[in-house]
This record gives sequence, structure tokens and C-alpha cells, in this order.
Amino acid sequence: MTKGKHSVITLITDFGMEDGNVGVMKGVIYGINPCASIVDLSHDISPQDIAAAAYVLRRAYTYFPQGTIHVVVVDPGVGSARRALAVQTAQAFFVAPDNGVLTYVLQELREKGENTRIINLTNPRYWLPQVSTVFHGRDIFAPVAAHISLGLEIDTLGEEIEDVLMLPPLALEMDHGKIVGQVAHIDHFGNLLTNIPGSDLIALGDRLTISVAQREIRGLRDTFSQGQTGQLIAYIDSSAHLAIGVVNGSAQQLLRSGVGESVEVTTSKDVSLHQEAP
Amino acid sequence: MTKGKHSVITLITDFGMEDGNVGVMKGVIYGINPCASIVDLSHDISPQDIAAAAYVLRRAYTYFPQGTIHVVVVDPGVGSARRALAVQTAQAFFVAPDNGVLTYVLQELREKGENTRIINLTNPRYWLPQVSTVFHGRDIFAPVAAHISLGLEIDTLGEEIEDVLMLPPLALEMDHGKIVGQVAHIDHFGNLLTNIPGSDLIALGDRLTISVAQREIRGLRDTFSQGQTGQLIAYIDSSAHLAIGVVNGSAQQLLRSGVGESVEVTTSKDVSLHQEAP
Amino acid sequence: MTKGKHSVITLITDFGMEDGNVGVMKGVIYGINPCASIVDLSHDISPQDIAAAAYVLRRAYTYFPQGTIHVVVVDPGVGSARRALAVQTAQAFFVAPDNGVLTYVLQELREKGENTRIINLTNPRYWLPQVSTVFHGRDIFAPVAAHISLGLEIDTLGEEIEDVLMLPPLALEMDHGKIVGQVAHIDHFGNLLTNIPGSDLIALGDRLTISVAQREIRGLRDTFSQGQTGQLIAYIDSSAHLAIGVVNGSAQQLLRSGVGESVEVTTSKDVSLHQEAP
Repeated sequence: MTKGKHSVITLITDFGMEDGNVGVMKGVIYGINPCASIVDLSHDISPQDIAAAAYVLRRAYTYFPQGTIHVVVVDPGVGSARRALAVQTAQAFFVAPDNGVLTYVLQELREKGENTRIINLTNPRYWLPQVSTVFHGRDIFAPVAAHISLGLEIDTLGEEIEDVLMLPPLALEMDHGKIVGQVAHIDHFGNLLTNIPGSDLIALGDRLTISVAQREIRGLRDTFSQGQTGQLIAYIDSSAHLAIGVVNGSAQQLLRSGVGESVEVTTSKDVSLHQEAP
Repeated sequence: MTKGKHSVITLITDFGMEDGNVGVMKGVIYGINPCASIVDLSHDISPQDIAAAAYVLRRAYTYFPQGTIHVVVVDPGVGSARRALAVQTAQAFFVAPDNGVLTYVLQELREKGENTRIINLTNPRYWLPQVSTVFHGRDIFAPVAAHISLGLEIDTLGEEIEDVLMLPPLALEMDHGKIVGQVAHIDHFGNLLTNIPGSDLIALGDRLTISVAQREIRGLRDTFSQGQTGQLIAYIDSSAHLAIGVVNGSAQQLLRSGVGESVEVTTSKDVSLHQEAP
Repeated sequence: MTKGKHSVITLITDFGMEDGNVGVMKGVIYGINPCASIVDLSHDISPQDIAAAAYVLRRAYTYFPQGTIHVVVVDPGVGSARRALAVQTAQAFFVAPDNGVLTYVLQELREKGENTRIINLTNPRYWLPQVSTVFHGRDIFAPVAAHISLGLEIDTLGEEIEDVLMLPPLALEMDHGKIVGQVAHIDHFGNLLTNIPGSDLIALGDRLTISVAQREIRGLRDTFSQGQTGQLIAYIDSSAHLAIGVVNGSAQQLLRSGVGESVEVTTSKDVSLHQEAP
């Protein structure tokens, strides 16, 4: 076996786990770097749901060690003229089709003022010898990620580009005393995770009212254990955004809500959301 | 990357795999110990089902190498005053909330007379710098497990305690000629796994009658291949307990049974279960 | 921990992931070879569906590094007299029950003229000390695979044999101007993957007509992005066989087709499939 290098590679796909395609990507990676540690972030993205993959990636990537390579293969345009990308930041690498799947990560990095280098993957030397028109995860993205994990300079992989395809941002409006955002993701427990930043809401605690699906929730809870079983609560999720849940239950089932549902935050008259909210 | 140490860390959660949260725990672990081997035991525990997680852990832990660290995050009380634990035994480590999820392992270890050291995790030095109120799997349990995998003495993690929260034991009664236990778990194939120890039943073989859900099964089968497709059989499962299955089918579907369903074992008059059963 | 050796071991089972049984197999492997890299190919094979496991393995195995050990545990005959096998080829090892699960791999290797050595696993020295009648994945296949990964010669594991149980081949008929094959697998996206080799079909492109479930599709598409959302298309899949899909949808749902459904390829009168098709 060739010499490898300790390095973490994460995978997000819409492949599911039943057909062996995720395993095949790992086989390709281990053939190039036998010392890679491969982490499944999610393979249950709904088919072709680019925004969902972008969201899962944004919540996860900051928790991985320096130099981790994140591979995202939700790729309805596979085989077409859509470009394939490798992106380098101070903290990590990203390998993905140019279809918007890196949108929320790139937005966050730009807001932080971090530099990103973006390469259009055009050099077939680092792909599998035969490239199918339907499975670039195996034929292009996995081998490229494995080569990066060995320390390959990413400009060897193609030519540098400036612009990538970005999804429209999730609507988020802040006005005097009111924030209107939306449900960005529904998690495994049926909690509704919103795009409303939560850090500045904590201090307002009991003075907040959250409206969603014709229900009103007063105040934030620190933990699920503060509510009664079946109670609808609002809380700050593990990525510091506003979320709505049901204690020992599913907010999705209770409210019959989906991604995109509007969520409104208001406050009592003596305080202003205008200044506190981001 | 920092120096790592070969060590196995297992994970049991009720997170599912779709949101990336399990992957994030792995990212945190690899950031501390890049040489850990991480094994998913189950992420499909029903939400908040502490007993199910305790059961899966008890069936699995003895098959892992010396020094393996088992992390269980089924944690409805996350963010509340419930304690967080690290437990050291001769064979393994366990890292989990103090909510009963270690019950069956601790019972088994105590029956075997093994020593356990239990630490209340109070030292934030080995946690992530920021601890959320809703995801201690990421912020406390994963980094603590990773530090233990590097060889950290567990009393560095907090103060030693004696008592932990235990679930009530699964009811199991033995009387002259009769054992009454219950379905403890339903596996992927729809087999009903009971809490009735099976080692001593094997010798009684054909003389046993197993009653469940108003059906009677006579005798034990060694293997599924001894029955006809569709036949309801009783057998000794891979953890040496009595189980009920359907050949090439699902006992759960046939009997419409669930966890907790009563299972009764009787025998012909000339032998006594009183002595053979544990 | 004992000295290990970098080596890839893949797993295909019908166990699902919820009960911890797949994790237990990994625990056994790491106890023998702490440096193994273990890849889940699929644990969602339908219970006892030997042909499905054989198909998933055949599509995957060529993408793994030299010396990879592929373990397949879909094993309705566990505990019976059915034999257990280890197979060595120039490229890989296979460890599985002798029930046909290696059929498509062995057919392919024989068509390529590759040698295979087949061992009947009879030497209990490389099994767990206690072997249950219901979980040979844990007690025999996992430890055997781990020992092979350390470099153990496979003839140490038992005696060499010539014949193994083979499934009947999937029906595939070629006649003047017509190929009749069948749906061999339905993937995560609902695409119908057939057993009709595709390499020679590509050149015929637009002149082909594919008939399935009383629908006719004219011509092949290179990529899904060439069609309209909802359109039924035929294409060559990532393992170079004919497949039928729906753009951003599910052919399985549209056609209500299953594995075994007949698929017919015809061509216009001026070209002959007789010569081009394999």
C-alpha cells in the first residue's frame, strides 16, 4: 500500500447507504490515502436538495480539525457542463460541484473576512482513469479529495476562478421590534431550526414572542427539560440560531410545518430588537 | 495534527444520521485524537429511549478490545442539572449522561463482581470552550471520550462518586416450573429478544413451552434453517437469551408485539425450571 | 493493543444499523487488527436477499485497493450445514457464507480468466472462542477477515475446495435486433438498473428503443441534465449497464416496477444489435 497521511475527509451526499455507492467513494479514497479518516456527515439529504446539503455542511464544518476536506456530492447536474470545485480556506478544504452547495459556508467565511481560493477542477490527472457521466462522486470528487489529503497543492487540480454559483440567501428581515426569518431545516427530532441568529435573543429571554404556523410561543427555554412533555417551546439551537421544538415530541408533527415556513420574533414595547439582533 | 493514540471509541445516540450531528462528534474526537477508530453502534435509538440504548450497549460492549471507550448520548435532560459521567472498568470506559443509560452494563458488571470507578464530569478543561445547552454529545461527551482515548486518567475529569441513576430492572420471575420475563428489544428482523437467560434452557430443549401473545411455541430450535418459512420459533439469541422469531419473516409483524410484552416459559412436569434457570 | 496492519475491510449485511450488530463485528475486527479501515458497503440489504447483496458487491469491489477484504453476511442458513468461505483473487479477498452471495463476482472473475482460491472455513482457531448458532458474522466472518487483514495465508483457515453454490444467472437474451434483460437492482433514487451491458449500446444512441413496463423510451441520454424534470430516460449507469430513470424523480414510482421486470432493447432496421451487443 502507498504511504498515506493522517487527514480527515467528510462526505455529504444524497446517495443513501443501501447501494454501496458511498462505500465505493471510500474505497477510492483509501486506494490513494490509506491513512485517511473518513466521516459520514449525511447521506440522507433528499435527492437533489442542494440547499439542505449546504445547510448541513455549514452547521458542521467548524467542528473539524484544521485541514479537514469536506466533500459534498448532491449533484443533479452531474455529467453536464456544470463545473467541479475545490476550495481552500485557512481552516479547511471543500470539494463539490459548482451548484450552490457551498453557499452558506462561503457566505459565512466572507462575513468573517476569510480568504478563499477556488479552483475549477479541470486536470484529469487526479481523477479516476475512466470518468462516467453519472457518478462524479466516485470518479472525480473522491480521488481529488484523497489527493488533497496527501498534501497536493490545489492549484495543481485546475485553474483558479473567482465566482461560483450561489443559492439565494434565506430571507431574513429585521425591522423595529420584529424579525422575520424562516425554517431552514427540520432535524431528526422534528425540531424546526430557523435562520434567525440567536445569540442576541438570549438576553431578551421572556420578553420575546415567537410566532410560527399560527401559534405563539412566549419566551425562550434554556433546555428541553424546562418544559412539560408535549409543550411547544422556543430555544437557541446548537449552532446558535432560534429553533422551535416540542418536549419529548416533534414540532414538525404538531405544527405540520416544513422548510421555508415563516417564523416571526417580536418583543414587548420597552425593548428593541432593532439593536440587539444581528 | 497532534499526536494520537490507537483506540476504539463507540457511539450510541438517538440522533439519526441525517443532520450531521454524529459526524460533528467525530470531528471533535479526531481533533483531539487523530488516531481514534470510531464505531457507530446505533444512531437509530428511538428519541429519548434510554432503556433501548442501555440494552444495545449491554449486548455489544464485551466484544470490543480492552480499553474501548463507549459513548452514549440519549439525553432528554441535556442542559439540566443531570450529571455527566465517565466510568472505568477493568475492560472499558463509558461516557454518558447520568440518566440510567448505563444500567444494564453496570448490573452485569456488579453481578460479575467487577470494580467500577465513576466520575462526575465537572472539569470543563476537557470540554469544548463553548458548551451549548442542547448538544453535550458534541461539547462534553465527545471531547471527554477523546481525552480518555489519549490515556488521560479519569479522575482528572471530575470527582469520584458512588451512586448513579439506575433504571428499574426488567421484570423477570422464576417460580417452580415457570419463568416469566418480557420482550426487551425487537431487532431489525422483527425478532423478539427477551430478558430470559438462555444458557440453562438449551438442555431442556423440546420439553419447553414458550408462551407469548396468546401463542404457544414448543421446544427450541438451534437455527432458523430448522424451521419452515413463516414458522414461529423460539431460539437462543447471540447474547444467550431466549428469543422468538419467524423463519424468513418478522415475529413482530406476526404477533403484533412490542417491547414489554410478557413471555412465559414452562416445562413438562418431570423437570424443574427452578433449578436450571439462573 | 496488538500490532496491526493497514488494510481495508468492507461489510455488506442485512442487519440494519439499529441493533449494534454491525458495530459488534467492527469491535471484533479492531480487537484483532487495530489498524484496519472498515467500510460499510450496505447494511440495508432486504432480509435474506442474497441476490441483492451479490449485486451490490459486484458493482463495488473493483474500486477498492489491492488486498481489500470484502465480508458479506446475508446468511439465512446460519448455524446449518452450509459452508463458510474465504476466497482469494489477484485483487481481493472475500469472506462469506456459501449461499450464492459471491455469484456475480465469481462469474465476472471467471469471464476475465482470473484465478480464485476458495477455502472452506473449518479451522476454529481463527474464530471467536464461542460460536453462536445465529451470528456467524460476529463469531466467524469478522475474526477470519481480521486475521486475513494481518497477512494470514488463507489455506491456514481450512481446506481448499473447488465448487461453491452459485445463484442462477440473471436472464439475458440477445437475438437479431433485440436484447431482453431485466431490472437487477433499484437504487436509492428509484432508478432501475438492468443487467444489460451498456458499453456497446452507446454508439447506437438515438437508434435504440428501450421498452419497460409498457412504456417506450427512444434513445439514450448521456446525463440526467439532458432531460426535463419528470421525464423518463434511459442511460448507461456507473457500472456500464443500461438503466432507466426519471429526471429529478423516481422511475420505480412512475413505472411501479420491481427487480426482475423485463427490459427490452430494440433498434432501427439498418443496424444490428446482434454484433454490437456483448
